[in-house]
Order: sequence, then C-alpha cells, then structure tokens
Amino acid sequence: MAGAQDERLAIAVARAGGLGSIPAAMLTPEQLSEQLNRFKASNEAYAHAPTLPVNVNFFAHHATEADTEQTERWLTVLTPYYDEFGINPQEIQSGASRAPFSAAMADVVEHFKPQVVSFHFGLPETTLLQRVKATGARIISSATTVREAVWLEQQGVDAIIAQGLEAGGHRGHFLSDDLSEQMGIFALLPQIVTAVRIPVIAAGGIATIDGIRAAMSLGAAGVQIGTAYLLCDEANTSPLHRVALQSETAQHTALTNLFSGRPARGIVNRVMRELGSIRNDVPSFPHASTWIAPLRTVAEKQGLTDFTPLWAGQNTQGCQSMGAFDLTQQLIQAFN
Amino acid sequence: MAGAQDERLAIAVARAGGLGSIPAAMLTPEQLSEQLNRFKASNEAYAHAPTLPVNVNFFAHHATEADTEQTERWLTVLTPYYDEFGINPQEIQSGASRAPFSAAMADVVEHFKPQVVSFHFGLPETTLLQRVKATGARIISSATTVREAVWLEQQGVDAIIAQGLEAGGHRGHFLSDDLSEQMGIFALLPQIVTAVRIPVIAAGGIATIDGIRAAMSLGAAGVQIGTAYLLCDEANTSPLHRVALQSETAQHTALTNLFSGRPARGIVNRVMRELGSIRNDVPSFPHASTWIAPLRTVAEKQGLTDFTPLWAGQNTQGCQSMGAFDLTQQLIQAFN
Repeated sequence: MAGAQDERLAIAVARAGGLGSIPAAMLTPEQLSEQLNRFKASNEAYAHAPTLPVNVNFFAHHATEADTEQTERWLTVLTPYYDEFGINPQEIQSGASRAPFSAAMADVVEHFKPQVVSFHFGLPETTLLQRVKATGARIISSATTVREAVWLEQQGVDAIIAQGLEAGGHRGHFLSDDLSEQMGIFALLPQIVTAVRIPVIAAGGIATIDGIRAAMSLGAAGVQIGTAYLLCDEANTSPLHRVALQSETAQHTALTNLFSGRPARGIVNRVMRELGSIRNDVPSFPHASTWIAPLRTVAEKQGLTDFTPLWAGQNTQGCQSMGAFDLTQQLIQAFN
Repeated sequence: MAGAQDERLAIAVARAGGLGSIPAAMLTPEQLSEQLNRFKASNEAYAHAPTLPVNVNFFAHHATEADTEQTERWLTVLTPYYDEFGINPQEIQSGASRAPFSAAMADVVEHFKPQVVSFHFGLPETTLLQRVKATGARIISSATTVREAVWLEQQGVDAIIAQGLEAGGHRGHFLSDDLSEQMGIFALLPQIVTAVRIPVIAAGGIATIDGIRAAMSLGAAGVQIGTAYLLCDEANTSPLHRVALQSETAQHTALTNLFSGRPARGIVNRVMRELGSIRNDVPSFPHASTWIAPLRTVAEKQGLTDFTPLWAGQNTQGCQSMGAFDLTQQLIQAFN
C-alpha cells in the first residue's frame, strides 16, 4: 500500500482491533519516524485502549544501478508519449522512488520498536535482519510459491503471508522471476499451510467477511486485506484512482512492470493497453518509475489516468467509501 | 477431463452421490453412445439406487480450417524435435482431435437424455442448444469472467461454472482471448455470485474438504473437481502422467497453447520450457494437436513426458491413488 496510505489508516485499523500497517518503501527514515511518532501520539491520546500494535512494511529488493543503454532504449519507446504531453525527457530528474531496507531504517526500527516488521521481495541481508530481530519484533514476509514459503521459514520468520495472484500491487516473488509460477490463493494457501509449521496469513482477493471465512477454511491463521481499504476516508488514494476503483474498468486488472520495473497488479489503463502490460525492455526496479512519473503528472492534471498505476487486486467487491475503523469492525465479524 | 476419463469414473462418482461427468469432446457420437449405454447398464445393475444422474460435457468452440501458412511456420519451429525423434513430418496425418458439439451429438443427447449437459468455450449455436433444452436437460457452461457469466445467464443456462485460473486443462474463455482477464477463483467466484441469480459452481484449485467448504463460504452452490480425480483407479490418466502428478514437478503448472492451440493448464515440461508456454505462432485450436501428437507418442515410448500435455490444476494436494467412489464419499463430507 506504499503511496496509498500513511499512519492515519494504520491508526484506524488498529483502534478497530486489526493490525494496522505503515508502508515504508517510499519513505525516507525521517518520514517514517514522523509517521511512527504520530501513531504513538495517537495511541497515547486514545485513553481507552492499551498500546496498539503496528506493523511497518519494508521492501527487501537488491538495489541496482540504472542501466544507461536500457534507459535509452526505453526512452525511445516512451518518446511518442513525451511528444504528445509536451515533456522534454532531457529534463526528467532520475531518482529511485523505492529504497530497500537499510541501516538507517534499522535505526528507526530500533528506536520505535514496532511490534511487527514485514518485508516484501524476500528478506534483507542477515546483519540488518538480526538488528530487527533483536528489537523483539515479530518478522513476517510474503511468499508467492511453496518454495519461497519454505525458504522464509528456514530463515526464521515468525509468519508467512501467502500472496495469491489476485493481490493488488507488487508481486512479492523473490526466488524466481517466472510469473507462471504465481498461483491463485485458493491453490497457494493450503499448499503453504501444509509445507510450513508457522502461521500463514492469506492475501489476495479477500474482500469481505465471506472471503475471510473462506481463507480461514483453507488454513489461514489470519488475512491481509489491501484493496478493500483503498476507498477508505483515511487512505491517500487519489480521486482519479477512486473513480477507477468504482467503475467497470476495475473488472480488468493485470500484472504490469511498466510503472516500476517489477510486476504489480493494477487496473488496465492506456499505457498498459498500448505498450503491453509486461515488457522485457523496461528499466529494472525501481528505475522505471523515473521515466513514467512525469507522464503521469501531466496526464493527471488533464484528468487522465493513462499513465497512473491504478493498483488494485482482482476483487474490488469489498471497496467501500467509509471510515477504516468501521470497515475493520465489519470485517472482524468473520472471526466471531 | 477429455482424454483422462470415461464412463467408469462417472459411474463411481455417481454411486457415491456426486454428479459424474462424461467428457465427449474427443469422442465420436458412436463412442459417446457406447459410454452412455455402459453408464445406463451399470445403473440398471446397481439395484440399491434410483436412476443415477449423469453430466455429458461438450466443447462449443467454432471449428476452423487449418491455415496452411501457419502450419508451415509451426513445422519449422518443431523441425529440430522431429529430427531428434526421427519423425518425418510429411507422414503426419492431420486430423482434429476435438470436435465442437454437432447435430450428430444432439441426436445422442436426444436418445439418452442425460440429466445435465455442460459446455466449455461458451454455448453451441441456438438451434443445437434448443434441441438440448427440449430434452429437459439442465444446461451449464463455464465462465472465466463476470462478463461471460452474465452472458451465459442471458442465454438461459441453468447454472454457471466459475472456472478460476487455478483450474487444470483448457481455459473456458469465449468472449475475449486476453489471458490477463482470467482471475483466481477467490476473486472470480464471489463476483459472479453477485452478478447472476442462477447457481454458481466453483472450479479451480478445489482439492479437499476444506477447499469445498471455502468455496461454499464464497457463495458457491456446488463445486467441480477434476485434478483430484486424476490418480483414481477409474481414471485413464497415463502412468507417466500419474508419476508427474505425484512428483515435485507438479508444483509448477502453466497455461500453454502448444498442445491444442488454446490455453490449457498443465505441468511444465520440456517443450513448454524450450518453446515458451504461450506462443502466437501455434496453429489454431484444435489443429496444433496434430503436429505435436507424434512427438508425444515417440517420446512416451522412451519414458519421456517432453511433449505430453500433463494437464493439472495448480493444486494437486487432493490427488489420491484410490477408488473414485471412496474419494467422492470423502469429499462429500464437506456438505455434512
């Protein structure tokens, strides 16, 4: 949910009895500290409750340098769009918008001691992981295949998120780039539950009370819900993204690497239709975002989502324009 | 399950209280009649039960002529394999192995009056469909998107099979060839249930009692299970296919059009790895099967599944080497 939410959504979810998450992949350590300070202050002001837990989510990819030749080829692909929207590609400031977990972020974790720390794209290097473990945080990470789940258990994580193909946003795969290995949650979840001994949290396509009950039938110890919260008052989902989520177009999502360089699920829009959702000539993660971001900015000013990553899972049935506290209390009834 | 079972599996399932199916897509009308006669005779010999129902499944694709130029290009792709296995492509007898529902098949339906007739790839033309309806058969067909489900309801089917992306064998899509529209059953099922008023049967990834319960939580009126029956005593699954289903390789299935010309899910094997699972230069359905079949035959004699369509869903957890009667009775406990 990086980019679509901050601590406000996490506070509302936590107050309702869920585990609220703060996505840190697009934040600087200073920004994350500010959010955690606000979460803490809100906690202290909330007299009725004990200290509410929070999860902080980090990306754990291996940072790579941008490849100049690859970038040049990609700019050629995008040139017609730059021309159409009056953008001079020479003036685009490059800058990776998503950074992997780092020593500076470990400092923040050590200072705030969040109860749960989760990772996407595997796990950070051992030294950094040990620092997180030493704070007493429960550590969880996403698996998209049985092999990844077994690997994560071997690394000593406390729980595994089984991320079904239905899930919105970035796929968490890290042992293989072969997208054909990605499974629907109905097939993935029970196989991971059988393969590991630690708790498994189901993610992807779960949008309603019935969905939660179904996931629990398949052996989940809990569920992770993203898309259903995108219309919540506390989410930072843009107005254009909200319109798309509530329209017929939300019926058709696809995995695409055009926006960041890694496959992520979003509502199909113009650039995905015209260029193809998955391409081999896209700059590596996260550098692709540098080159599409200016197109997004200019197009959005014209009310167009042609270049906007409209992250969403395959099931938008649970999306409701309401407070996240009420939505969470609604969903939590599945456990009664 | 065309090719992997005949009326023997249907009889065992029916006796245990399920709705047994006879796949007719690879049968001549005479062969289907023989199977239905044997089903009927078995029924009559089975003194304890009332007349057991049966479902006959047909394909409803639009038959196309093979394209000579396309075939030539495809033969070039396969030439290294023909050379390796000592096959002279000039000697290959072309012949479509899968025929759409026809007037001759409607004759068979009128004669035997199966209680249920199901279709894959949409529905046959109106005249033929009316003939089936007039027999009193309940008609069902597969939907892979919400749009297909709504379309089928408008055509007057009695129930819809929601075929999740996890399912083994041929995808049933018929309104769009865009595979990115295909959804996991966890997302597809509840959205179809909301969109139509007729019963929805869940298919894809359902392999166990827990899986059935989960599907029912998501609004299914029933479930269709295929992969879990592939190891049953009564299935015609080949020994090599059985070995693959029980091995680690079953963890990795993919959609492929190499074997028939239409995307179908099977365990990844040599030809899928080497040529890529989905290609644009494959002859149209069902003509592709003509050109790969001889490779399969020769390779299988050497104990190789390099060219064998190892149809399987993403969840082989339910596969058990046992009688289909016992397996069905086991699964049916989900409804108690």
